[in-house]
Amino acid sequence: MFENALTLKSVASVVGQKEGEGPLGAMFDAVEADAMLGKKSWEQAEAEFLKRALEKAVQKTQLTQSDIEYVIAGDLMNQSTSSSFVLRDMPIPFYGIFGACSAFGEGLGLGGMIVDGGFARRVLVAAASHFCAAEKQFRFPLELGGQRPLTSTWTVTGAGAAVLELGGAGPFVRGITTGKIVDMGIKDMNNMGAAMAPAAIDTLAAHFNDFNRTPDYYDVIATGDLGYVGKDLVVKLMKEQGFDLSRNYTDCGIEIFDRDTQDTHSGGSGCACSAVTFAAYYYPKLVSGEIKRMLLIPTGALGNQMTAQQGETIPGIAHAVVIESANA
Amino acid sequence: MFENALTLKSVASVVGQKEGEGPLGAMFDAVEADAMLGKKSWEQAEAEFLKRALEKAVQKTQLTQSDIEYVIAGDLMNQSTSSSFVLRDMPIPFYGIFGACSAFGEGLGLGGMIVDGGFARRVLVAAASHFCAAEKQFRFPLELGGQRPLTSTWTVTGAGAAVLELGGAGPFVRGITTGKIVDMGIKDMNNMGAAMAPAAIDTLAAHFNDFNRTPDYYDVIATGDLGYVGKDLVVKLMKEQGFDLSRNYTDCGIEIFDRDTQDTHSGGSGCACSAVTFAAYYYPKLVSGEIKRMLLIPTGALGNQMTAQQGETIPGIAHAVVIESANA
Repeated sequence: MFENALTLKSVASVVGQKEGEGPLGAMFDAVEADAMLGKKSWEQAEAEFLKRALEKAVQKTQLTQSDIEYVIAGDLMNQSTSSSFVLRDMPIPFYGIFGACSAFGEGLGLGGMIVDGGFARRVLVAAASHFCAAEKQFRFPLELGGQRPLTSTWTVTGAGAAVLELGGAGPFVRGITTGKIVDMGIKDMNNMGAAMAPAAIDTLAAHFNDFNRTPDYYDVIATGDLGYVGKDLVVKLMKEQGFDLSRNYTDCGIEIFDRDTQDTHSGGSGCACSAVTFAAYYYPKLVSGEIKRMLLIPTGALGNQMTAQQGETIPGIAHAVVIESANA
Repeated sequence: MFENALTLKSVASVVGQKEGEGPLGAMFDAVEADAMLGKKSWEQAEAEFLKRALEKAVQKTQLTQSDIEYVIAGDLMNQSTSSSFVLRDMPIPFYGIFGACSAFGEGLGLGGMIVDGGFARRVLVAAASHFCAAEKQFRFPLELGGQRPLTSTWTVTGAGAAVLELGGAGPFVRGITTGKIVDMGIKDMNNMGAAMAPAAIDTLAAHFNDFNRTPDYYDVIATGDLGYVGKDLVVKLMKEQGFDLSRNYTDCGIEIFDRDTQDTHSGGSGCACSAVTFAAYYYPKLVSGEIKRMLLIPTGALGNQMTAQQGETIPGIAHAVVIESANA
C-alpha cells in the first residue's frame, strides 16, 4: 500500500485500425488507419505509436515534458528498442523495463514507488506493441500467411501511457502486488494465455492474502492479456484456491476485440493491450466513479523466439495494481 | 541523495576463463573454465552465470532467499531471457529491466529507491552477459571467425550481483543520477564506446551540477564499459565542459582485461563488465576504506541487430551511483 495519494493525472491511448473497429473503438484518443504511421518499418511504427501516446499523456496534463521527472517504458522489441529510440527525443531520466506484456503493471509499480518514496513528483509510464512487428519477431512473417491456432491471441497495435503524480484528485494508485516468475511448463508460443495464467493466479492469490481482501472488494478485476483461454484457467484455478472470480473478473484482451466479428481467436495481447484498455475503457469509469475500486493485473510471457526453438518453457509474470476512484 | 543509509551488504562475481586470466582474476568469487557451464547453449550458460552470482550474493549475507524482498535483474539477451529464466527457481517478486550494459546501474538506482522509500528491506540486484551469446546475437556467429575492429570491445562473460539493505555498516549507496537517452549518431555496432560516451558525459555533467560537486570529490570515477575509445572521448569532452577527469577516472572495461596480452582491442563490455569489476575490484576497497567515495556509471548501448541493419543510430544511456565507504 502506498502511504501518499498518487493520482493518475492523465492517460492516453493511440491504437491501430483493428483496435479502432473493436468494442472500445470510440474511446481511444486516436485510431490510426495506417499501421505504418508513415514509417519505413513495423519497428519504427511501434516506436511512433509509443511516441504519440507519451506526448498525448503529457499534453493532457497541461504541463510540459520538463515537468516529468522520470519516464518508465517497455515494449516487446528485442532490446526494447521502441522505448529507447523514442526517448532520444525526450531528455528525461529514463528506466527501460522488460516484463513483456506486464510492462504497464511493472511501470506503474516502479513509478508508484518512485513517487510515493518522494524521489519524483511526476512519472510517465508507458507500454507499446505492434501486431506486425511482434508476429515478425516472435512467430512468422505475415507474408507467409501462416494459420493462427485457436489458442493464439492477437497482439494489440498501439501504445498506452499514464502520468502518475503525487497528490492530486484521483483516480489513485493505492498499492501494488509485484509478481514472481511462474512457469508451469507451457512451450507453445501460440498459447500465451495458458503460459501466463499461472503467474496471474500466483499474483492474485498473493494480493488477496497480503491485503486480506476477497475478490468482491473490487468492482472490476482485469488481467492484461490472457484472452479467453487464460481467463478460463484463472477462474477455474482460483476457485480451487477458494476465490470466486466468476462475477467481476475479465481480461483486457477480451474487452478490446469482438470475439464474433474480429477473428482474433483467444483475444488481444501485447504490452499495449492492458495499457490502452485501461486508458480508454477503465480510466474514464474511475474518473466518473462508475468504478470505485479496480485491480489491474498486466501479464507477461517472457520467452523469445530462440528459447522457443531451443525447447524452453515460457515463464510468466503478472503485476497487480490497485486503482481507486476519488469516491471509493 | 538517499535519506537512509543503504548498505551493499554483499556482492558476488562469477566469470569465465578469459576474465579469470585478466588483472582482476584472483579477485572474482569464481572463475569458470567451461564457458558453457555444462549447459547446451550459450544462452543457457549466460543464465547459469547469473544464477550462480545471485545465489552467491545471497549466501554471503548468511540470509536465505526468503529474506530478499525484490530481485531486479537485466541482461543482453532478446527479451531478457537470462534473467526471467533464472528467476523461475527463485520465487521472489521480480522486476526485469533493460538498459543493456547499464543494467547494474539501473538496478542499483531502482533498488536504492525501493529500499530508501521503505518498500523493501533487502533488494537483490544483478546483471549478466556472455561473450559468445552476445556475438551470436548482435554481430556474427563465432564460427565465422570474423575479424574484430580495433574499436570493438569484448563482452564480459559472467554475472555480478549485490544485496542492498536498509541500514547496516556500509559500504553505502548514497545517491544516484539517472541517465537520459543520448544519441549522437554513431551507427557502428563495433564502436560501442563512442556510442555510449555522450550518454556518460551527459550523466556525469548532470551529476556534478546537481550535487554541486567536482570530480575530485571522488577517489574513483568508473564508467561501465566504454573501453579505451570511449574513455578518451569522455576525458576530452568533459574537459571542454570544465571537468578534469584526468586523475581519478577509469572505465571498468579497461580494468578487467590486460590491453597488451588479452587482445580485446578497446577493452571489456557487457552487462557483467561493470557488475563484476565493481564486485571483485572496487567493493573490497570500499570495505577496507582504501576507497572512500566512488562514482560508478554503468553505460548501455541500446540498439539491436535489426535496428543496425535498418540503419538506425545507437542510443546510449548511463546511470550514476554514488557509493561510499563507512569511513568516508
